[in-house]
Amino acid sequence: MIVAMSHTASEEDIQGMMARLRQDGYDGQINRGVERVVIGVFGTGFAPEYPETLENLPGVASVTRISKPYKLGSREFQPHDTIIDVSGVQIGSGDFVVMAGPCAVESREQVMTTAEAVAASGAHLLRGGAFKPRTSPYSFQGMGEEGLQILSEARARTGLPVITEVMEPEEVETVDRYTDVFQIGTRNMQNYPLLRRVGQMRKPVMLKRGMSATVEEWLMATEYILAEGNREVMLCERGIRSFDTTLRNTLDLAIVPMMKRLTHLPIIVDPSHATGKWYLVKPAALAAAAIGADGIIVEVHPDPDRALSDGPQSLTPANFADLMASLEPIVAATGRRLCSAVAAV
Amino acid sequence: MIVAMSHTASEEDIQGMMARLRQDGYDGQINRGVERVVIGVFGTGFAPEYPETLENLPGVASVTRISKPYKLGSREFQPHDTIIDVSGVQIGSGDFVVMAGPCAVESREQVMTTAEAVAASGAHLLRGGAFKPRTSPYSFQGMGEEGLQILSEARARTGLPVITEVMEPEEVETVDRYTDVFQIGTRNMQNYPLLRRVGQMRKPVMLKRGMSATVEEWLMATEYILAEGNREVMLCERGIRSFDTTLRNTLDLAIVPMMKRLTHLPIIVDPSHATGKWYLVKPAALAAAAIGADGIIVEVHPDPDRALSDGPQSLTPANFADLMASLEPIVAATGRRLCSAVAAV
Amino acid sequence: MIVAMSHTASEEDIQGMMARLRQDGYDGQINRGVERVVIGVFGTGFAPEYPETLENLPGVASVTRISKPYKLGSREFQPHDTIIDVSGVQIGSGDFVVMAGPCAVESREQVMTTAEAVAASGAHLLRGGAFKPRTSPYSFQGMGEEGLQILSEARARTGLPVITEVMEPEEVETVDRYTDVFQIGTRNMQNYPLLRRVGQMRKPVMLKRGMSATVEEWLMATEYILAEGNREVMLCERGIRSFDTTLRNTLDLAIVPMMKRLTHLPIIVDPSHATGKWYLVKPAALAAAAIGADGIIVEVHPDPDRALSDGPQSLTPANFADLMASLEPIVAATGRRLCSAVAAV
Amino acid sequence: MIVAMSHTASEEDIQGMMARLRQDGYDGQINRGVERVVIGVFGTGFAPEYPETLENLPGVASVTRISKPYKLGSREFQPHDTIIDVSGVQIGSGDFVVMAGPCAVESREQVMTTAEAVAASGAHLLRGGAFKPRTSPYSFQGMGEEGLQILSEARARTGLPVITEVMEPEEVETVDRYTDVFQIGTRNMQNYPLLRRVGQMRKPVMLKRGMSATVEEWLMATEYILAEGNREVMLCERGIRSFDTTLRNTLDLAIVPMMKRLTHLPIIVDPSHATGKWYLVKPAALAAAAIGADGIIVEVHPDPDRALSDGPQSLTPANFADLMASLEPIVAATGRRLCSAVAAV
Repeated sequence: MIVAMSHTASEEDIQGMMARLRQDGYDGQINRGVERVVIGVFGTGFAPEYPETLENLPGVASVTRISKPYKLGSREFQPHDTIIDVSGVQIGSGDFVVMAGPCAVESREQVMTTAEAVAASGAHLLRGGAFKPRTSPYSFQGMGEEGLQILSEARARTGLPVITEVMEPEEVETVDRYTDVFQIGTRNMQNYPLLRRVGQMRKPVMLKRGMSATVEEWLMATEYILAEGNREVMLCERGIRSFDTTLRNTLDLAIVPMMKRLTHLPIIVDPSHATGKWYLVKPAALAAAAIGADGIIVEVHPDPDRALSDGPQSLTPANFADLMASLEPIVAATGRRLCSAVAAV
Repeated sequence: MIVAMSHTASEEDIQGMMARLRQDGYDGQINRGVERVVIGVFGTGFAPEYPETLENLPGVASVTRISKPYKLGSREFQPHDTIIDVSGVQIGSGDFVVMAGPCAVESREQVMTTAEAVAASGAHLLRGGAFKPRTSPYSFQGMGEEGLQILSEARARTGLPVITEVMEPEEVETVDRYTDVFQIGTRNMQNYPLLRRVGQMRKPVMLKRGMSATVEEWLMATEYILAEGNREVMLCERGIRSFDTTLRNTLDLAIVPMMKRLTHLPIIVDPSHATGKWYLVKPAALAAAAIGADGIIVEVHPDPDRALSDGPQSLTPANFADLMASLEPIVAATGRRLCSAVAAV
Repeated sequence: MIVAMSHTASEEDIQGMMARLRQDGYDGQINRGVERVVIGVFGTGFAPEYPETLENLPGVASVTRISKPYKLGSREFQPHDTIIDVSGVQIGSGDFVVMAGPCAVESREQVMTTAEAVAASGAHLLRGGAFKPRTSPYSFQGMGEEGLQILSEARARTGLPVITEVMEPEEVETVDRYTDVFQIGTRNMQNYPLLRRVGQMRKPVMLKRGMSATVEEWLMATEYILAEGNREVMLCERGIRSFDTTLRNTLDLAIVPMMKRLTHLPIIVDPSHATGKWYLVKPAALAAAAIGADGIIVEVHPDPDRALSDGPQSLTPANFADLMASLEPIVAATGRRLCSAVAAV
Repeated sequence: MIVAMSHTASEEDIQGMMARLRQDGYDGQINRGVERVVIGVFGTGFAPEYPETLENLPGVASVTRISKPYKLGSREFQPHDTIIDVSGVQIGSGDFVVMAGPCAVESREQVMTTAEAVAASGAHLLRGGAFKPRTSPYSFQGMGEEGLQILSEARARTGLPVITEVMEPEEVETVDRYTDVFQIGTRNMQNYPLLRRVGQMRKPVMLKRGMSATVEEWLMATEYILAEGNREVMLCERGIRSFDTTLRNTLDLAIVPMMKRLTHLPIIVDPSHATGKWYLVKPAALAAAAIGADGIIVEVHPDPDRALSDGPQSLTPANFADLMASLEPIVAATGRRLCSAVAAV
């Protein structure tokens, strides 16, 4: 940590800072330049808010943290890639993974039709929401546990492991009985009680980026899960909020290769929520593969025009088959391959 | 709702749209212009996602909702101002209300000192957090129920009603035993299970704006509380996320008079979180009064340099006394007055 | 255009609106719904600000424009793709185009070395700035006309056509003597006198998206050039400004296929400015190809650590050769091909 | 400047950095901590891009600039406030200044009516645009020099000095013949040839903040004017671009007291462009006074519903009179006063 004193700081300010540092258990080294004094602070484990506390002391111009505030998720902590095994699907292994299914579970028939279609086209996981966070209280809120049972039945039939969203700590145990991967949605990225609760489980978690979360906030949220002992966390870029409303969100695709440098955790891309328009899902998915994402999660619905949620961004089964056919050569062109198909049960 | 057909739409597309509307229980009126056909759709209670569903149908250029998606919180639904009585403090009455206290409850002594100081300077409510949502799992997370007991004791001593944050549905009952107003923080603005739970209580709620929440999303979140039957909701503008990181957040002050037009609910401003710097709290608070906010909520700490949370944005008791002295003439200049002092117990 | 009257609008308000419309030369059709009156306005050529003018009249709830405000650049105006021929390089033809070269022209030797290297690796155009818009007046501002002469010499030697930035109307004629394509930078996207001036030339223009320009603003800026008669305009997505500062900008890649639907003009992607980091340029460039961009423009410098401008985002010639080798299979995987090499002079 | 080496940096990397620093004329001091080496770099006048150049060298984790990149505009350079005298109106003196007039000059009659009205209500300067930067080429583009003559005539009649926008370097001399203050609009904040040109004049300049300009970029743009020798620069906060489109822009009011700490230049607020709605102009203007701005610039039109530009955000003369009456007590409540009236000619 570097404390830059103001060019008007007095000797008393400088000594006051040194005394405060020693009092807090740290060691400082004074560098006297022509214009100002700069103090290097040695030690580890600074509380995240410590820099701004020091910045408030007399005579301080700025305080700069050198070490990153996240730990367990960082490449420095673990140089090798985390690989998460979900019933034989290796996420983060270099192979490209495709998760597909409806936005919301609406009926047994809808889920079965979709699950069989996406399995036939080569999807690796089945997605589907039973508990839905909706912007309006007057929208369809999901089928609840009945929806989880339907997903579970679809898994039995197709062999596809299931990923589904959990919205509150109390629901975690219920969802755990049915799902293979917990999904934490964008609105809950900083729902800390929920993060801690899934951190206590021993099952993979996919943490979506908050709508306006910086990379650092996203990785700090991840830290809540990792610190509870659950190391099987994957991240999901699903578009961020920007000034332009042409698309539903702004897909921050270039962050994917940056994240691969900062963290050892797998990164999934959600082109459906990012764009909000079904006809942009395929090009965005191809770009996600080209830029090095570990996989995608896409919405598929047998009849998007009648979907209770996110119809406009849902692919039909035929669109999905076309996407899978187009993905293969792109993935191959980057020297990787699609994850091998999971054996049907 | 207005459906504008594309200029290349066929007669079949137009009739298909009319059929779909009738099937969904609505009535449409066709307007044939020179360039395109526009269909006015009559009816009420469109599901929030209905426009985007229609937009996906063949030959449609755009669908525009005319009515606002929020209801109970809108001025159209209730033209007169909602006034919330908190132990005699009338919030939303036109009088200006000041809530003050520490960011986090750290100790009995810290809270008592602060509470007595802010009461002496004329504050109307005591704020303080016992459950703290912190960006890092390695930061101080709050004292929990013990903190609530301390706040309760401070109320007994000063007569100031208490406002404190609740972070998860399971905590609502515990917090309810101690607080006078529930605070929902910015990270939980779209934590729907939590919103529903406080909506079931019969105690005022202050809902902070999400970091990147549009006005419509903010009012839709409010709707979750109102729809459960709790009509005592006040809103809090606490700064939004923008591209500029000079300040902690960007205080969207001009939205305050706009909100007063859109909703009948009181609007509070939080200049502490908005700016992140104690020396900007006073000017921002004065501006909040001048622009027509119903009150402010500010952080006060007896020793900000030692605060466990948000020290850099906390006022000292002396700073707070100065703020109160400066507020009075500004409030008077807008033809209003500070809320009358609450009788000490 | 649709005028929705407020549900409290009086009959006088409605008739006043009809009178105003007629006075302004338009025809309105009244639709009387249960809750409110909606007026369809027929006619063409509404001034861009006309909707907000009407919105200000008594009893109006909202005014919605149905037609897009841009014309000449829209797909509706011209359904087929614009193909721009630059000395035999067909931009927008489906083939993928690569423009490469230094950020700034620094010396004759630097440009020759770079130009020969990128030509050898298969680049199609040579980029390089002689007039540089720098955030600071204390930074290197470019070599001016001498730099243009160097670029011109590099074209003679390599056969690569030149693209270079022009910053003010007065410079347009000078730059015209040397360049093959005018580049308008992000800071000048709404420099209207400059846009008009290049619009009067008969030479292709590449218009970069403004840092916080919406799609509509970008296309409206394009309209300034097209309306002067110059129809050879290509657009360049170079990253927008968002709340996250991890990267230099946020590459809005998903907008590329959306732009292809809205406009017939070619779209180029600039992965160098978008990311600001050389090691992200290759993955971002591959993604640009996968998502359907018409080409890329990248910065290459023989010694990035000594570059006078944008060193950190510049590729070395070896990095660039590697990028070209990696691009080819991705472009092929999307069913396209790299533009055929230009014959050296 | 502080260079933090990565924890994996080799001794060769460290010595390489020291050699590079010496080669570039700087001196470095090595601090060896437990986890990493940190190098303090002494010297002044680092080029703005120097930190990112160093960041690219082997073994470097991050480079932090301690000194601000702007100089002449900073409080460190000049601790006392700059006061700009415009025909007797002292801007930046502590007194509050009001500039008012139409968005665009539309006719002689419109300007005279408006000028007389705002003068009668106590305005200090007359605003009005003769050259208009419009988003669309199909909108009214201003009356040009004829408009300047009308403004000049209005000054003669009312005694109010004139502020008007200049859009390109070639126009500066023409505008100079008529105006008292040059206004640079938000779209031209980084039009460097234009900034340099007005920097060569000896007449005050008001520089509006770019739509997405950070504080640092804004002050760096100011530096272009100051560095040419023109020290009479005032800044204008006019709303920034955020994700919320409820209002035309997001008024960043809390930046005003922050700017007063960073720079000695006066700060004006434009509540008309910031909000885009006439009924928000008064509350936003009062807030600007309360937060410590040096003045405001507002749009007034005799018949806003017929204005050729920005009608919806224009006050009528009666609204303006009401604003002036309301401003006075707010300004007084902050211990300041409205600038004394200028003697009519």
